[in-house]
Amino acid sequence: MPNDTRPLAISVPEPRTLDLIFTDDALKQLHARYRIVETDPEDIAGLSDEVLSHARYIIGQPPLDHATLARLPKLRALLNVESNLINNMPYEVLFERGIHVVTTGQVFAEPVAEMGLAMALNIARGIVDADLAFREGRELWGGDGNRSARLLSGADIGIIGFGDLGKALNRVLSGFRARIRVFDPWMPASILRENGVEPATLEKVLTESDFVFVVASVTSENEGFLGAKAFAGMRPGAAFILLSRAGVVDFDALMSAVESGHIVAASDVFPEEPLPLDHKVRRLPGFLRSAHRAGALDSAFKKMGDMVLEDMDLMDRDLPPMRCKRAERETVARMRSKPVTVN
Amino acid sequence: MPNDTRPLAISVPEPRTLDLIFTDDALKQLHARYRIVETDPEDIAGLSDEVLSHARYIIGQPPLDHATLARLPKLRALLNVESNLINNMPYEVLFERGIHVVTTGQVFAEPVAEMGLAMALNIARGIVDADLAFREGRELWGGDGNRSARLLSGADIGIIGFGDLGKALNRVLSGFRARIRVFDPWMPASILRENGVEPATLEKVLTESDFVFVVASVTSENEGFLGAKAFAGMRPGAAFILLSRAGVVDFDALMSAVESGHIVAASDVFPEEPLPLDHKVRRLPGFLRSAHRAGALDSAFKKMGDMVLEDMDLMDRDLPPMRCKRAERETVARMRSKPVTVN
Amino acid sequence: MPNDTRPLAISVPEPRTLDLIFTDDALKQLHARYRIVETDPEDIAGLSDEVLSHARYIIGQPPLDHATLARLPKLRALLNVESNLINNMPYEVLFERGIHVVTTGQVFAEPVAEMGLAMALNIARGIVDADLAFREGRELWGGDGNRSARLLSGADIGIIGFGDLGKALNRVLSGFRARIRVFDPWMPASILRENGVEPATLEKVLTESDFVFVVASVTSENEGFLGAKAFAGMRPGAAFILLSRAGVVDFDALMSAVESGHIVAASDVFPEEPLPLDHKVRRLPGFLRSAHRAGALDSAFKKMGDMVLEDMDLMDRDLPPMRCKRAERETVARMRSKPVTVN
Amino acid sequence: MPNDTRPLAISVPEPRTLDLIFTDDALKQLHARYRIVETDPEDIAGLSDEVLSHARYIIGQPPLDHATLARLPKLRALLNVESNLINNMPYEVLFERGIHVVTTGQVFAEPVAEMGLAMALNIARGIVDADLAFREGRELWGGDGNRSARLLSGADIGIIGFGDLGKALNRVLSGFRARIRVFDPWMPASILRENGVEPATLEKVLTESDFVFVVASVTSENEGFLGAKAFAGMRPGAAFILLSRAGVVDFDALMSAVESGHIVAASDVFPEEPLPLDHKVRRLPGFLRSAHRAGALDSAFKKMGDMVLEDMDLMDRDLPPMRCKRAERETVARMRSKPVTVN
Repeated sequence: MPNDTRPLAISVPEPRTLDLIFTDDALKQLHARYRIVETDPEDIAGLSDEVLSHARYIIGQPPLDHATLARLPKLRALLNVESNLINNMPYEVLFERGIHVVTTGQVFAEPVAEMGLAMALNIARGIVDADLAFREGRELWGGDGNRSARLLSGADIGIIGFGDLGKALNRVLSGFRARIRVFDPWMPASILRENGVEPATLEKVLTESDFVFVVASVTSENEGFLGAKAFAGMRPGAAFILLSRAGVVDFDALMSAVESGHIVAASDVFPEEPLPLDHKVRRLPGFLRSAHRAGALDSAFKKMGDMVLEDMDLMDRDLPPMRCKRAERETVARMRSKPVTVN
Repeated sequence: MPNDTRPLAISVPEPRTLDLIFTDDALKQLHARYRIVETDPEDIAGLSDEVLSHARYIIGQPPLDHATLARLPKLRALLNVESNLINNMPYEVLFERGIHVVTTGQVFAEPVAEMGLAMALNIARGIVDADLAFREGRELWGGDGNRSARLLSGADIGIIGFGDLGKALNRVLSGFRARIRVFDPWMPASILRENGVEPATLEKVLTESDFVFVVASVTSENEGFLGAKAFAGMRPGAAFILLSRAGVVDFDALMSAVESGHIVAASDVFPEEPLPLDHKVRRLPGFLRSAHRAGALDSAFKKMGDMVLEDMDLMDRDLPPMRCKRAERETVARMRSKPVTVN
Repeated sequence: MPNDTRPLAISVPEPRTLDLIFTDDALKQLHARYRIVETDPEDIAGLSDEVLSHARYIIGQPPLDHATLARLPKLRALLNVESNLINNMPYEVLFERGIHVVTTGQVFAEPVAEMGLAMALNIARGIVDADLAFREGRELWGGDGNRSARLLSGADIGIIGFGDLGKALNRVLSGFRARIRVFDPWMPASILRENGVEPATLEKVLTESDFVFVVASVTSENEGFLGAKAFAGMRPGAAFILLSRAGVVDFDALMSAVESGHIVAASDVFPEEPLPLDHKVRRLPGFLRSAHRAGALDSAFKKMGDMVLEDMDLMDRDLPPMRCKRAERETVARMRSKPVTVN
Repeated sequence: MPNDTRPLAISVPEPRTLDLIFTDDALKQLHARYRIVETDPEDIAGLSDEVLSHARYIIGQPPLDHATLARLPKLRALLNVESNLINNMPYEVLFERGIHVVTTGQVFAEPVAEMGLAMALNIARGIVDADLAFREGRELWGGDGNRSARLLSGADIGIIGFGDLGKALNRVLSGFRARIRVFDPWMPASILRENGVEPATLEKVLTESDFVFVVASVTSENEGFLGAKAFAGMRPGAAFILLSRAGVVDFDALMSAVESGHIVAASDVFPEEPLPLDHKVRRLPGFLRSAHRAGALDSAFKKMGDMVLEDMDLMDRDLPPMRCKRAERETVARMRSKPVTVN
């Protein structure tokens, strides 16, 4: 199609697929507006110069070396459809050339926030154990079943990390007239205040909350920063809800704090995934478990495609991308957590 | 104490107790501001004229006959600390004399709303069964565990009944950018609109919602008004969440609709409470159970006392009560559901 | 029309007219659903027993004596389409019989709140004088024209009175992240808190606000309660905005406080209306004037008819009115301010 | 001070001054945390290599050539304390080197939004002319003075441009239950929806709004894009409120549309500033004038210093700036409007 004037995009969304991340309608739009060249992430260098020299976008994050980048003179953006940035390309070259590297992990913010709220309400009201008791005919009625029940409304809530997940959590909490304190060292205090939350130290968030939500990314610096001391400082009976990555906590210390009865907890993420069958957390009372299901909804994946289309449309008009999140020179090296292997 | 100028209040809060509904501080205030005469509900008529002729308030809803009422010339209000009005006094006499009959059931609105939201999120994400599977080592990870998962955010939500419970539900749903339709024949459409919800027919609420919350009181007219036809009209896979009284639904029809796989459901109330051990709902998949625990939190009961104090303070100053809800001539006869026997 | 089964309503809306308070559509509905008998307020007693014995509603507040009331056995409600209650009927009889007396003054809440906010922003930014200066070629540009300019966002705001007007003000202020303190002795503190405002003493509201809005009704008890001492206690440069009735302030003291430069002010109401041509407030710098125009918008009057229709519909179904505001036994005698003579 | 380890910042904030943009406290912090070298914008090249080779930040936007930039090896950011970007440096070099260019114009968003709302309410209620009439004894009372009055509540509102100003406007409008449509070709539709506004075409915004707010920046492409045709398409009596730059409208056409009575208008910006004394807009009825005063509040300037401190703190910790707005490679050339000459 020598006269094809559509911009060219190379599609390498692995481990996603175009069908996973685009609705039928969006996929039609993608093909109508762009000339799509599909290949394997490992095979980019094998593409012809005809393709590479015209490529405006890469959907995915394939390995790229200096030589291949040099053959991509018109490249405007890599649209990474995972949440993590892999160390498989010379990012500094991309930044120098002004090639945007954007991520679509924002799509998971709303599902994760709903799961986090669900976990908090479950813990506050003992819903899982009450339903089990009911199945087995040993349920307690009315106030008798509410000895440890409490409300989220009016509670002191702490959020660790105020990126997309933290903001989405804050939004679903907006009807609960709660006092929300946030610890996020990457975020200016005034931005937190504009979002209606209180900037606070990590210690204050841990020690003065009834519910603590952890939505901080793992970086090269914060691995395991929530350990025995952190849990010991929490209010007795407070809830610790882990939604981002297991790497930010000392998981054994978390289990001990729950086992001792000092706190209760919920987690969507675990030190190993899948987890050994004999792992202690499987039967730990006071601990609510979810098998990394918080974000991975089909509706979330489908939003990735919409975001990609919206940002490519902006860049086609020589505008900067606004919908996806851009990788930053300063933090790209710190944000490299393990790639996902399961959608 | 012949010179005691404190107003006199007769305390008969059964089945509650003063200790249940007042915090320590509030109880101190009550005693500091009022001369409290405690008696059994059945023994009001046996109180001396000295007491009855001075009584300004009755805390509770004891049986009262014309003769006793005639001996209570200064009575300004009955402060009913249950949610139901019992047919044990000539209400028309109270209304004629301008004696307020107020109820404190509003304290349950927030806990019930949180439980309702918890149920909706649980159903949407399959949290109970996922935790059980995790305990037993058969959990599904990531997207594999989310085949039927969905979001509340952006969903179509129906609410049946827009009294205190409905309003509280609307409040905790405020962060979910949902479209909320309400059916409430007792409520002018313009008030619903002012609350940011859409007035709708019962049929529309049932047939165009992803989640239907039932928070309507039982009246003499709406018993069992939600039956097989109502459930059949719901969207496939939609969730039916019952929070007010079992009397408004045909419970067998509800179970059948769930059993058939057409809808999923959750309920806090049941046709009999406690429920027979062999009741089918106990093991019904797709049904989340709670043993009438949605409202009965200690913190809710304690708010009753605060409400009573605030309204007595207004009435002491010859102002109308504003904090509790007033019984109405038109509806008092319709609102008589069964008295609670358990706190 | 002997077989006319429509409920009968007597229409005496003076000083309003049906055309003022009903849209064309609403008027059609009124006539379709009700048999309307129009008469003069003074002529009610002259209506036939055929009419009086069937009358279910009176739209208006005509003088009524015991004898006429006795001839109105089926009367369910007087729907007062003014804001004030006139002392021209034995209210105690109406209350005893359970005849509702409802008012529609709520329609003015939104227009008055917008005018109040407009006044505050005008004062804060000096808009009137800046526009005048601009007309005359002596405007100051940029920061030079902003020496005394300030923001409402983040300010301390006081509201005196938290009825419909106060609530509407609170609503239009919701985007300003302001701290709002309210003084209202008729309103329980917990209700204020539920509305997101801080209950406070009159003194605190006056002394710790940048903007004070007065939306309190005149009662038999609060006449002139805001005087020289109140104004002296305000923050230097603070704004006093009067929206309800001139009777609640000592107007001379208010003018003096403005003249001295201590505070600035705006008012929609005046001790005499119309005001003498030589009244000092007409040329007082630092004072923004509005000639009782805050509420009287055509769109507000038209809402009265909608409210009347909604409440008659409820009462037709033996339900209590919910849309209009009910007069209360306790306060009816206190709420009698002068009738309006101009729409 | 050879052992001074504080990072070095060059201060050239002209036309601002450090005193204008920093509070006393902030200025103390600035000096405590940084070694500040003050100079004239024109004299940067004259600074010693000792200074230039250590400079981490430049506060201001002085002219910079390639040679000078080469002598600034540690430069991390230019913190521009105006709203505009001047074409006085090779931006492409800055972008290549990853030197951030950030602007602080966001501080004006809140004051401009309040002014815009004030203008809308003024126009809707005729406040300026009513106060003038009152001064002169020709005021109209009550409804007589409200013939053309209308509400913002429930109105159709259009916003052109959804940068910081548009978002701030949307925020102060949040209490008005208005339907808000936004035209912004630089902004993905889904982001508009997340902000609770409706994405719309320019035509729809113009033709279906009661109030149109223009907060779009002038770019090299949109000069004068709102002309006679745009105004002719507006609803009769609708209000056009200009808050960004006069360059985006055909000012003569705007005045004609107002003069003809088709629309009413308000503007904070004018084709020439200051404006000739005989300019027609000075006496044009139906037009509210403000002499470029919407943003220039002292409190806004002081926020600039806070923003600068917050972002320098992030960059000191090797994090990207988040508080100020970053110039973008794609749009830097388009965003160059005339520099301000007056604070």
